[in-house]
Amino acid sequence: WKEIKFSTASYTDSSDDETSPRDKQQKNSKGSSDFCVKNIKQAEFGRREIEIAEQEMPALMALRKRAQGEKPLAGAKIVGCTHITAQTAVLMETLGALGAQCRWAACNIYSTLNEVAAALAESGFPVFAWKGESEDDFWWCIDRCVNVEGWQPNMILDDGGDLTHWIYKKYPNMFKKIKGIVEESVTGVHRLYQLSKAGKLCVPAMNVNDSVTKQKFDNLYCCRESILDGLKRTTDMMFGGKQVVVCGYGEVGKGCCAALKAMGSIVYVTEIDPICALQACMDGFRLVKLNEVIRQVDIVITCTGNKNVVTREHLDRMKNSCIVCNMGHSNTEIDVASLRTPELTWERVRSQVDHVIWPDGKRIVLLAEGRLLNLSCSTVPTFVLSITATTQALALIELYNAPEGRYKQDVYLLPKKMDEYVASLHLPTFDAHLTELTDEQAKYLGLNKNGPFKPNYYRCLAPTPPLKTGKPG
Amino acid sequence: WKEIKFSTASYTDSSDDETSPRDKQQKNSKGSSDFCVKNIKQAEFGRREIEIAEQEMPALMALRKRAQGEKPLAGAKIVGCTHITAQTAVLMETLGALGAQCRWAACNIYSTLNEVAAALAESGFPVFAWKGESEDDFWWCIDRCVNVEGWQPNMILDDGGDLTHWIYKKYPNMFKKIKGIVEESVTGVHRLYQLSKAGKLCVPAMNVNDSVTKQKFDNLYCCRESILDGLKRTTDMMFGGKQVVVCGYGEVGKGCCAALKAMGSIVYVTEIDPICALQACMDGFRLVKLNEVIRQVDIVITCTGNKNVVTREHLDRMKNSCIVCNMGHSNTEIDVASLRTPELTWERVRSQVDHVIWPDGKRIVLLAEGRLLNLSCSTVPTFVLSITATTQALALIELYNAPEGRYKQDVYLLPKKMDEYVASLHLPTFDAHLTELTDEQAKYLGLNKNGPFKPNYYRCLAPTPPLKTGKPG
Amino acid sequence: WKEIKFSTASYTDSSDDETSPRDKQQKNSKGSSDFCVKNIKQAEFGRREIEIAEQEMPALMALRKRAQGEKPLAGAKIVGCTHITAQTAVLMETLGALGAQCRWAACNIYSTLNEVAAALAESGFPVFAWKGESEDDFWWCIDRCVNVEGWQPNMILDDGGDLTHWIYKKYPNMFKKIKGIVEESVTGVHRLYQLSKAGKLCVPAMNVNDSVTKQKFDNLYCCRESILDGLKRTTDMMFGGKQVVVCGYGEVGKGCCAALKAMGSIVYVTEIDPICALQACMDGFRLVKLNEVIRQVDIVITCTGNKNVVTREHLDRMKNSCIVCNMGHSNTEIDVASLRTPELTWERVRSQVDHVIWPDGKRIVLLAEGRLLNLSCSTVPTFVLSITATTQALALIELYNAPEGRYKQDVYLLPKKMDEYVASLHLPTFDAHLTELTDEQAKYLGLNKNGPFKPNYYRCLAPTPPLKTGKPG
Amino acid sequence: WKEIKFSTASYTDSSDDETSPRDKQQKNSKGSSDFCVKNIKQAEFGRREIEIAEQEMPALMALRKRAQGEKPLAGAKIVGCTHITAQTAVLMETLGALGAQCRWAACNIYSTLNEVAAALAESGFPVFAWKGESEDDFWWCIDRCVNVEGWQPNMILDDGGDLTHWIYKKYPNMFKKIKGIVEESVTGVHRLYQLSKAGKLCVPAMNVNDSVTKQKFDNLYCCRESILDGLKRTTDMMFGGKQVVVCGYGEVGKGCCAALKAMGSIVYVTEIDPICALQACMDGFRLVKLNEVIRQVDIVITCTGNKNVVTREHLDRMKNSCIVCNMGHSNTEIDVASLRTPELTWERVRSQVDHVIWPDGKRIVLLAEGRLLNLSCSTVPTFVLSITATTQALALIELYNAPEGRYKQDVYLLPKKMDEYVASLHLPTFDAHLTELTDEQAKYLGLNKNGPFKPNYYRCLAPTPPLKTGKPG
Repeated sequence: WKEIKFSTASYTDSSDDETSPRDKQQKNSKGSSDFCVKNIKQAEFGRREIEIAEQEMPALMALRKRAQGEKPLAGAKIVGCTHITAQTAVLMETLGALGAQCRWAACNIYSTLNEVAAALAESGFPVFAWKGESEDDFWWCIDRCVNVEGWQPNMILDDGGDLTHWIYKKYPNMFKKIKGIVEESVTGVHRLYQLSKAGKLCVPAMNVNDSVTKQKFDNLYCCRESILDGLKRTTDMMFGGKQVVVCGYGEVGKGCCAALKAMGSIVYVTEIDPICALQACMDGFRLVKLNEVIRQVDIVITCTGNKNVVTREHLDRMKNSCIVCNMGHSNTEIDVASLRTPELTWERVRSQVDHVIWPDGKRIVLLAEGRLLNLSCSTVPTFVLSITATTQALALIELYNAPEGRYKQDVYLLPKKMDEYVASLHLPTFDAHLTELTDEQAKYLGLNKNGPFKPNYYRCLAPTPPLKTGKPG
Repeated sequence: WKEIKFSTASYTDSSDDETSPRDKQQKNSKGSSDFCVKNIKQAEFGRREIEIAEQEMPALMALRKRAQGEKPLAGAKIVGCTHITAQTAVLMETLGALGAQCRWAACNIYSTLNEVAAALAESGFPVFAWKGESEDDFWWCIDRCVNVEGWQPNMILDDGGDLTHWIYKKYPNMFKKIKGIVEESVTGVHRLYQLSKAGKLCVPAMNVNDSVTKQKFDNLYCCRESILDGLKRTTDMMFGGKQVVVCGYGEVGKGCCAALKAMGSIVYVTEIDPICALQACMDGFRLVKLNEVIRQVDIVITCTGNKNVVTREHLDRMKNSCIVCNMGHSNTEIDVASLRTPELTWERVRSQVDHVIWPDGKRIVLLAEGRLLNLSCSTVPTFVLSITATTQALALIELYNAPEGRYKQDVYLLPKKMDEYVASLHLPTFDAHLTELTDEQAKYLGLNKNGPFKPNYYRCLAPTPPLKTGKPG
Repeated sequence: WKEIKFSTASYTDSSDDETSPRDKQQKNSKGSSDFCVKNIKQAEFGRREIEIAEQEMPALMALRKRAQGEKPLAGAKIVGCTHITAQTAVLMETLGALGAQCRWAACNIYSTLNEVAAALAESGFPVFAWKGESEDDFWWCIDRCVNVEGWQPNMILDDGGDLTHWIYKKYPNMFKKIKGIVEESVTGVHRLYQLSKAGKLCVPAMNVNDSVTKQKFDNLYCCRESILDGLKRTTDMMFGGKQVVVCGYGEVGKGCCAALKAMGSIVYVTEIDPICALQACMDGFRLVKLNEVIRQVDIVITCTGNKNVVTREHLDRMKNSCIVCNMGHSNTEIDVASLRTPELTWERVRSQVDHVIWPDGKRIVLLAEGRLLNLSCSTVPTFVLSITATTQALALIELYNAPEGRYKQDVYLLPKKMDEYVASLHLPTFDAHLTELTDEQAKYLGLNKNGPFKPNYYRCLAPTPPLKTGKPG
Repeated sequence: WKEIKFSTASYTDSSDDETSPRDKQQKNSKGSSDFCVKNIKQAEFGRREIEIAEQEMPALMALRKRAQGEKPLAGAKIVGCTHITAQTAVLMETLGALGAQCRWAACNIYSTLNEVAAALAESGFPVFAWKGESEDDFWWCIDRCVNVEGWQPNMILDDGGDLTHWIYKKYPNMFKKIKGIVEESVTGVHRLYQLSKAGKLCVPAMNVNDSVTKQKFDNLYCCRESILDGLKRTTDMMFGGKQVVVCGYGEVGKGCCAALKAMGSIVYVTEIDPICALQACMDGFRLVKLNEVIRQVDIVITCTGNKNVVTREHLDRMKNSCIVCNMGHSNTEIDVASLRTPELTWERVRSQVDHVIWPDGKRIVLLAEGRLLNLSCSTVPTFVLSITATTQALALIELYNAPEGRYKQDVYLLPKKMDEYVASLHLPTFDAHLTELTDEQAKYLGLNKNGPFKPNYYRCLAPTPPLKTGKPG
């Protein structure tokens, strides 16, 4: 048998030169220099990562196949600003296969996988991104995407709103040709709603963050697995018999509770909303105030979207070795700042794990410094990213092809039918067979045989309003 | 110790006289004759049933307590048409305690508990209902509620729309004084929307069927338990190892699947909606078309809200002893009519259980002739009825007290805040302690500390549109 | 279609004559009078019950098929004393098909299904049993089975040891021809071990109560379902959110806990054995002393095999409406006698449900007066009885065919291989496909390809020693 | 606040000198040279690891406390040969606190944690072990433990039997003073039984591998968590909706199946033993032959203890991306050798993960080259190791203190009472409160109030005979 050992040098290459990518002469094998990455030589390694990701992103691959005849994005000039990962690469190459031209920057200065960026550049995508950009680099990269001689974007795919913001600020005239914005993040969506309220949104925008399918996967299904993974990788603890309090019983909380209960933990829940509280009761969790159990629990998990849910007072009362982590929104839920006081000693025991030590020797195990555990200490499965990427692709297609007048200068949710389409594209992964309505049944139900099957107002059980699982960074 | 043995004669009294209640002279112990029930002597027995129900309806009892000072329904004259059960009695007596005058008829000719009706009549409530009314009796009872000398209703509480229909038809002028209609059933709500569309709705109406709390309990939580109970009581089967197909993965289907999986059954799911289908996959159920598994399954359960989901062709292919039942809407899901053919023999093996026998000896076990299993072969827990009754009471209070102009001649959903209030009234049952927002947190979230905590559009995952768990009859 | 409505008169026939069956002239359609049942005319109805039971006892039916060639019980003359139910009838008719002659009495004065006894008598089985025997009748029936002109038993199948006891007492000489005793009950097995210890056991005896397969089904799997069924049928309560304490975490306790947890109850466990206690912890249950939770729980379930686990003191401290029931051994676990004091009022609210009322109005809901809930208020699924009956049949075959000397005058457990055979006969019910070892694998494991696959000492996790789920009566 | 950053140099110190520890002059801070480790300077780092482990090994710490008065191992001279980890260190230091003198070597050439060995040496323990020993080093280290001037062991603690073997071979006379052997591994136990059979065992030996508590934790509880962890760390896959086949339904298989089912996977089971097979059915898993599902599953997991359960033929038929791994005994279950053929390409994609690529491009994802997933790709929780270590300590105490004649030259299981004691020492971790029998109850049950509560033959449901979860290495 043949054994292939890939050089993994690319990951740890400490001898990598320190020259800024901006200062390097770069050229791919076809002679193009319209990109800026860390090291174009890592392209082969990145390509393999992309190929592996393709296998778990069947929906995008299916879109590519269907696009062999018609090119729904023919003529589209998309400028994108997202994390640069293998999964994003599959999305970009799918957009390309659907007829679009793309230019891309990173939405985060740390999250770029250099070898993936190299592979994209090698394939001819103008990519401007590397791991460890400075803030100046960050905006430079974005600018290189939009400020191009002889090319002007007509679609925006944004994650966080920075790209949109840059164009608003620097090239407002570009919006004349832009048909729409697709925005993926909570923050970016928030910005768009503010623009819209202020009457300043000058093109239609699609909020893909709140599509039913994406929400269910980002929150309930993904967190059900990542809470276990995140805790295990950081602490090697055993779940059986442990007492856990989960703050918040939205979708994220439901996922965490279900997983821990299944592993034999004893789970308590806190809630502010009586409807979610009653659900916790019916699902078999004791509903308590945090103070009632804080002295006895082994683990505290926040997923409320709220701030200062775990206060210094709570932390003072926890028992020795109690683990504290956050699965909710940003890093506000645990009052980590309150732990930066002189009498406490912080000890970094491994990556993402701090022991905070009280004067009497009590240790609290703080994970990821209170940032999102599932993003810091676990991985987001490709399948979840596939749901997101497919939703983005369909939103781009919808906005680009919508007849005049369907969308105005406002923020829209993905039409229910397309939401259902995203879901249907992922069913073959599970060898799942959908039932079709007969004509008679469709008539009886008053539905179109091809959907949508639910009214537009149909949403998943949204978590407490501002709670959304964010993106790394 | 003292032993009390209640005469259970009331239930089986075969010597009960055959005289129609309409032809009897009736008088309660206080001398009132303004009622019509089967046998006023059963009042004591009915009172005990009501007292037992009160213990499981803490929310209504809490409302009574709070009403000791203010009487939010003072002046209200409510005419009601619902099932007459111990739980309804608790509702009626609560409305009375809140200041209302009530007159009541049954919404179903079979469902009245005679002893409860007697107890209400004995307590002074003008009740017109008995088990086994003729259709003529049915309308006569309704008419006796509304057509009264010197008393005119100003609120309607309806379940099915028959009372509303009768007033529209016979006494349309009454609507001048009526402040609103509270409607509980799918059918009744449907009629109201039709009236509204046609511009004929002349007072505000509240659709309490679709409140989040009620939906979750009527569907998910109630069905999770009643599927097991209904199957066990009718067939004494063992769940472990059985192969089951559940048609439909809305809330009802989710409840059925979760319960059977927990008991060791192997569960397959069919769905038409890709979003629900993907949820079934993630919850660990193989998504199939009915045809793929029909030959191998031991149990077929429908909960789609659709019609002819199980056809004669499916029934022909089932294996011997397969159990077929319906947890969905009305009795359309299984094509029972197709089994009324000469070559098949029906054998009633016990109440609600038919063996349908094929010429080759194969037997299908059909439960409740395809009607709702949970209503025919199980019981609805008082706690679930408590949720419904509390929702009705709050809707009446809201409509009766709403300032001029808040509600127009349209159909409304219960305000989110009151929905949350219903939930909060039921938390003490579980000794559940709700967390309160601090001022700082409320500000951060942009919420009022007392709720509502979710936007009005927030709904539970509604089942396929027309699917709603109905009421008996 | 043809509709068959069986007269259900047999069940409720209040006009049934009061003459003792012993005083009646009885004759079946073939002219035999060698039996004594309540009413031979009920035979048709009983036959149908037997046919339905046959469908859920595939293992016995498989034994019948295999017996078409050889008759492993040819020449066997079996006298039996068990409950007379449809399932026993399937066993008896199987023994007949295997070549045996049988005579049968009931082991309990209440449990006989008269119509089944009639069907057996009609088919030619000498059955002596009816519902509601006096104690004198009981021993008369047993005597009629053994004291027969020209027929002497050579095998005993007993359930409780009364038949064995009678023969010891009245006809000790019969043991000369008897090849063995198969005993099914805890009590009967206990008596046999005592005889054996005392050196008075004069034939081999097989203890089928403790076979692995039977134990797992009688305890874990059966109780997992019957705890829900028993509670629901008696109280119509909702499980979701209820706080429950389960006393004892043997197999029965494990089944109860798993089921209630799955239905959304919050479950506490008490244990005396640290190994079982640690298992409860790892399975996610808080391990407490009963006193710690007695004031807060909604349900108390005993399954310890111990006595006075729930004392009057506990009962005094329970909250209003608390439900108390027993899933363990006999009726000793709850100190019911302590509730028979003058200041408490007992109210029988429905069959098997008593409210015990304290002077302050507090009610405790006592189920089945502390007897076994699963036998009093639920049904034992035919499948579980099939396991038992098959075990009995194989034990009879083993003892009857064992070569001289294999079994001495002692009490034996069913050989592991036959235990495995019982299990294998039930796999087809689930369309389950067993894997066969290859020769190479068998050699590697040091096993015979046909089993036994486990050593003889291999036992299920036995509950606290004396705890065994008994039989009704 | 103070931040402490430990140098993690010890882990990655590439500049570590290449000199063999045997060739170094070593001395701890107290001047002792009676040890041989990699680098005594790492002691501080190792001490911290030991302190962290102490927090999760409460049972040993409790033993230390109880030993403050009496020293049950006073006079004991223990020579040990186990993995050298933080948990072993806690055990060794506990043995010291109980009065024993210890000398220690590693039972595996790779598994030693150098910094822990350093910490032990610094504390004065004669430890001879480092990561990456040669085979010659291995035996040299063992010899240095036993072959000491003026010190002779009187107890052996072994893991694998190598130490025992060495003494048998080189210093047979030592057995005159040795009171007993405690052996922890399957292999070592097997060797001891062989010695015993051959009449060559010259001291009593205690088989701690088969104690109930240890078995349950090593197999069921540990594997329930490590199957998820092992799969997630290696593949980042999502469990929801995945089809999985688990070969073998012993304790390990039960743990794997329960965990995956809880995460939303669809699980199939294969079995050879009908009793385990029937349990799989009742637990809700379809029982199949591997061939029936091999084309459709996403994951194949072996836990049979058998060999060649997954053959090349199976591997040929798996679908693209199928993951194959082993949770069972050693590395025989998957026929990995059959994959070393020229037409297949192996690609190492990350540590412990190989893609085996068929000529048509199909990839199989093979984990840990078929070795134990839970040991290769996950971690064994300290709590599980605590159970093992406590069992070892108690076995040493028992053997050392047993009165003359209690143990002969044979292999023994830990007495039930001590097994229960191990469990009871771990209950405080869960704040679990054991119930005590009253005198009356103890009498009723015929038990001593302090246990043992189960007969000695009481065992957990053992997996197929040779299946035992081994140790790393």
